[in-house]
Amino acid sequence: MAGEFESVEKSLEKHLPPKELAEVRRILYGKELKALDFSSEVKNLADKKNFELKGYAFTAEKESLRPARVVRVGLIQNQIILPTTAPVPQQIESLHQRISEIIEVAAQCGVNVLCTQEAWTMPFAFCTREKHPWCEFAEPAETGATTKLMQELAKKHNMVIVSSILERDDEHGEILANTTVVISNTGKYLGKSRKNHIPRVGDFNESTYYMEGNTGHRVFQTQFGKIGINICYGRHHPQNWMMYGVNGAEIVFNPSATVGALSEPMWPIEARNAAIANSYFTCAINRVGTEIFPNEFTSADGKPAHKDFGHFYGSSYVAAPDGSRTPGLSRTRDGLMVAEMDLNLCRQVKDRWGFRMTQRLDMYAESLAKAVQPDYQPDVVTEK
Amino acid sequence: MAGEFESVEKSLEKHLPPKELAEVRRILYGKELKALDFSSEVKNLADKKNFELKGYAFTAEKESLRPARVVRVGLIQNQIILPTTAPVPQQIESLHQRISEIIEVAAQCGVNVLCTQEAWTMPFAFCTREKHPWCEFAEPAETGATTKLMQELAKKHNMVIVSSILERDDEHGEILANTTVVISNTGKYLGKSRKNHIPRVGDFNESTYYMEGNTGHRVFQTQFGKIGINICYGRHHPQNWMMYGVNGAEIVFNPSATVGALSEPMWPIEARNAAIANSYFTCAINRVGTEIFPNEFTSADGKPAHKDFGHFYGSSYVAAPDGSRTPGLSRTRDGLMVAEMDLNLCRQVKDRWGFRMTQRLDMYAESLAKAVQPDYQPDVVTEK
Repeated sequence: MAGEFESVEKSLEKHLPPKELAEVRRILYGKELKALDFSSEVKNLADKKNFELKGYAFTAEKESLRPARVVRVGLIQNQIILPTTAPVPQQIESLHQRISEIIEVAAQCGVNVLCTQEAWTMPFAFCTREKHPWCEFAEPAETGATTKLMQELAKKHNMVIVSSILERDDEHGEILANTTVVISNTGKYLGKSRKNHIPRVGDFNESTYYMEGNTGHRVFQTQFGKIGINICYGRHHPQNWMMYGVNGAEIVFNPSATVGALSEPMWPIEARNAAIANSYFTCAINRVGTEIFPNEFTSADGKPAHKDFGHFYGSSYVAAPDGSRTPGLSRTRDGLMVAEMDLNLCRQVKDRWGFRMTQRLDMYAESLAKAVQPDYQPDVVTEK
Repeated sequence: MAGEFESVEKSLEKHLPPKELAEVRRILYGKELKALDFSSEVKNLADKKNFELKGYAFTAEKESLRPARVVRVGLIQNQIILPTTAPVPQQIESLHQRISEIIEVAAQCGVNVLCTQEAWTMPFAFCTREKHPWCEFAEPAETGATTKLMQELAKKHNMVIVSSILERDDEHGEILANTTVVISNTGKYLGKSRKNHIPRVGDFNESTYYMEGNTGHRVFQTQFGKIGINICYGRHHPQNWMMYGVNGAEIVFNPSATVGALSEPMWPIEARNAAIANSYFTCAINRVGTEIFPNEFTSADGKPAHKDFGHFYGSSYVAAPDGSRTPGLSRTRDGLMVAEMDLNLCRQVKDRWGFRMTQRLDMYAESLAKAVQPDYQPDVVTEK
């Protein structure tokens, strides 16, 4: 994207003297992570396919009674391929192809669990408030073409795939939902998880299309760890993150679509805070690029109508329970982030920091039960 | 502190070209804040008294029906003055003097609500696990010498003072508590708020001295807004922050004491995440310097016994509901951070982002009520 700033990390690397860079990185990113070493074949492939490839390893202490549980997670951030005016089937097909080829490279990088960005089979058209043709991108979670394709790839590559789509629920009133489908590495459909909190802000007119999710905070036991999915706007809600932790998640994915002016300073904060507070890994994934729509729309900001949504700034990253994090992928290019993690770190951090032990959930269960009563009186001390 | 890195902000300012600095700052700190302009008299006084003085303004939109509610908050971070081997009354007296003189300058900066660091009248001696003489620093919250002094200063300067002490609760078994006392700008004792979550990690052996607080999440209605206090380790707990928001807080103070190796990468994350999630201002305050104790102690890290706690890294800052934040105070020097804020911003951000409206607390009240039952079965999907 011409004129867009590429990344904080590149700017720091370019200008700070080594000693200061090390201190700034320590404070901003935590414990230094080893970069993963990929074969030149894989690196060339990523170059040829024009996406950024980055990889980092989170380590844990060796234990006496549990073997290490090292898994590799892959996050894909990408632009749409065809203009939003292209026929719907072609738009979907072009994204199916693009993501399949990036998944191919992810497989060669040893990725065990792969996650896409939110609603990856379509432009993020909810800014328009128009139903046509965007609702046509919706598919049944269990049997849609995208799920079928992901099942093939999951089986082929022995990889869990976490695929975020716009869902059409044929069996329940043909409603739409913002849904993530989890496919086992055996190729089996494992289940789905819906977006729990729906935005009503600026260009994020999603409440026009679907309601708050009704799938709760289920966690999926895969061969590569217990995973949960907190979709996009749900990252602003610490209680949402909390419940995935309560259900035992070791990795929580946050497939997102968000633009610069609105949310960028919050982006490095929220998923990382959740990793710290809940002693699990978090993976924040944002799309990239600028999407232009055929008809004008307004953004509820007093400005004139226009046809684009602003710049999706990518910057996908992984954060660990010990507060460390990877650098972000680029703000401007498609990318694959590979993170190797020993899941034993979760329990080790629970033992060390004690955040789960000291959580006092019983107190909050009681406080919240009172607070949600319509006649709740806040506890306010005033001068007598 | 010789050899300690001074601050991320100074390093970036020194080395980044102006255009890149602006982008890095935008992504790391959010909307740019105007620096407050203090008189040269005040600046000279801060220099003479050898503490850093910084000030920034958070603004809000003008409204038609509510006047702006502009208040100035002051945060003090400081080192101890005398060696930890000095007689207890002298140690207390030296800190009383030091903080009184910084409060004097705060008053000249127009501060309306002032907050100290955690347990400001003493070294952070809980690393030692020794009871003598450290328990002698404890005072009754309502009637202790520190509260009396703060009442005088509050009245003199027409300033709310939020004073964090080690409490001796004479009327309830003479137990200790980690407590913050709130003094009204009229000089009246308004009430107290205790630390809700107590650490059991490394040198933070506080559970040896006092228990989890029993004062809940009360909020204090002052002439300058509704304030709450989340003491130190409570910042790792999003539910703790949440309940102050539920009770209507507009500013939540986080008086802390924490050291580098342990928590520094989490420091910029947690209080700021709370400001975003709860649509209020947060003020994170950490002490400064290295404290050396007379007797050896160990830190539960396999290393030999030693007499110091490591470096308290200061870096106190203020975060706003819109995700913006001030730079931090220095990592190495005493300091006073003055933040001007229009409290109307809280409700404006609630309207804009909708995080409070979309919070679904009823769902979490129900989920938590189930989750705290001893026989709770996590919601885990497995392959059939």
